[in-house]
Amino acid sequence: MLKDIVRTKTYQNVITQSSFLIKDKIVLDVGAGTGILSLFCAKAGAKHVYAIECSQMADMAKEIVKTNGYSDVITVIKGKVEEIELPVPKVDVIISEWMGYFLLFENMLNTVLYARDKWLADDGVVLPDKASLHLTAIEDAEYKEDKIEFWNNVYGFDMSCIKKQAMMEPLVDTVDANQIVTNCQLLKTMDISKMTPGDASFTVPFKLTAERNDYIHALVAYFNVSFTKCHKLMGFSTGPRSKATHWKQTVLYLEDVITICEGETLTGSMTVTPNKKNPRDIDIKLKYMLNGHRCQVSRTQFYKMR
Amino acid sequence: MLKDIVRTKTYQNVITQSSFLIKDKIVLDVGAGTGILSLFCAKAGAKHVYAIECSQMADMAKEIVKTNGYSDVITVIKGKVEEIELPVPKVDVIISEWMGYFLLFENMLNTVLYARDKWLADDGVVLPDKASLHLTAIEDAEYKEDKIEFWNNVYGFDMSCIKKQAMMEPLVDTVDANQIVTNCQLLKTMDISKMTPGDASFTVPFKLTAERNDYIHALVAYFNVSFTKCHKLMGFSTGPRSKATHWKQTVLYLEDVITICEGETLTGSMTVTPNKKNPRDIDIKLKYMLNGHRCQVSRTQFYKMR
Repeated sequence: MLKDIVRTKTYQNVITQSSFLIKDKIVLDVGAGTGILSLFCAKAGAKHVYAIECSQMADMAKEIVKTNGYSDVITVIKGKVEEIELPVPKVDVIISEWMGYFLLFENMLNTVLYARDKWLADDGVVLPDKASLHLTAIEDAEYKEDKIEFWNNVYGFDMSCIKKQAMMEPLVDTVDANQIVTNCQLLKTMDISKMTPGDASFTVPFKLTAERNDYIHALVAYFNVSFTKCHKLMGFSTGPRSKATHWKQTVLYLEDVITICEGETLTGSMTVTPNKKNPRDIDIKLKYMLNGHRCQVSRTQFYKMR
Repeated sequence: MLKDIVRTKTYQNVITQSSFLIKDKIVLDVGAGTGILSLFCAKAGAKHVYAIECSQMADMAKEIVKTNGYSDVITVIKGKVEEIELPVPKVDVIISEWMGYFLLFENMLNTVLYARDKWLADDGVVLPDKASLHLTAIEDAEYKEDKIEFWNNVYGFDMSCIKKQAMMEPLVDTVDANQIVTNCQLLKTMDISKMTPGDASFTVPFKLTAERNDYIHALVAYFNVSFTKCHKLMGFSTGPRSKATHWKQTVLYLEDVITICEGETLTGSMTVTPNKKNPRDIDIKLKYMLNGHRCQVSRTQFYKMR
């Protein structure tokens, strides 16, 4: 994960270039992993950093902190955020890299919000503090053929019943910017410093306008993250026009192949909710409608990320 | 997995071109998945096929069998091989695609051997009936730097304690044939029709002779599978000189960078055992020795596939 340069470099730049946010502050690193963000903060002059990590990696993080001579500044705490005790009542900064695929899949957001409500000082800062989900539409004839239509004829046998299941699984993959047919639309912004866990369930409308005559095979979701407390806005995008990250994009194939002309709009709504049985899974409901010159389409589709 | 053409096509060719092994025979498909091997057998004229699958995929397989009109020939049984009842006392053929990474990682071999001992007729056939493990040595400066030495300096911090752990993890990856420095040696052959589960634990010697002057950064293991009961020998190799499969190869990085001259030999032994705690994990012990013109090396390294 450290090898995702876009991600790690952004955090490094934020911490290094906005040291006024970190210097002489008490920092809490939620889900510290190897401790890399804690090390960045220690180097930037944090008064103290508490690095919470529940996996075995905590032992490694302790050794790394020691090897790099930061044992007096960074305290690695092995355990769950919801179960551990902090030696201080409040912290000035909470930093975390909590985002999952599709922003919300298998994420640590609720843990960050828990830590915020319990320990963050009134004038404290959450890094990052904004995350937004975006949507666009792509032409993807080749890949849809490969991934979905494949099941119609598998070495001569009809396995189309698997197709239905394949359609319901959002695909995490890198989309070529040339495949984009419409504008990109902001679906939802989350303010990590204020939101509640319930805000991660939502229904939002969208309106995508075709920028060329083409087919639409899939909608593509991606997220941006920003650190608005820096002097200049910093952050990164996981969109198809940005430098690739390990989050790639999330592709939702449509039942229909939509023929769209430049200027026509695909409208609809997306509903995102944690699965009731397994809250780490995500249910996505997509309604879409096109009143085009060549075809009328109106459909509701359900997806499950698991 | 159906998309691994080398794998699936080989099974298809074996079944189609050696229909004398299948026609009018009772076949047991161990770990049937979508049922593709059962369908091949039914099409080749099997008298009856019992397809055992313990996952949810069994329901899909039932539907696929029905859709393709083979419900009277193929019976899908949902359950564990060790727990289900077969409606017949004996079968003529056991077919299975049981191989894991490094042949033996998370494999279904023991399940196949259990089915063989319980149900295979005296003159019955196991498909495939031979599997062999092979070893070669590669130059891999670039990748070792990337994967292992990376930890020496991670955004300016010393994380070399993670290096030790990274070294112990065999890496499943595709090796370029141009990286091969020595001959390829057969380590171990398994006769699936005769072997016992204990035969999957072994210590075998090796002797690799350099075919050019180069460095050795890693040993690479791969396996071949063959169907010797066909009229002509059929099978496939997962080696770096063969067409890629989803099994790729298994790379074991060496502590030492070995300087070797053409004709010099790297000798040693490999010990493979299931992990005592988690029998699905594999412990690998590698002893190697070089008495070269430029350096003498003698070392024992331990790896864990998990």
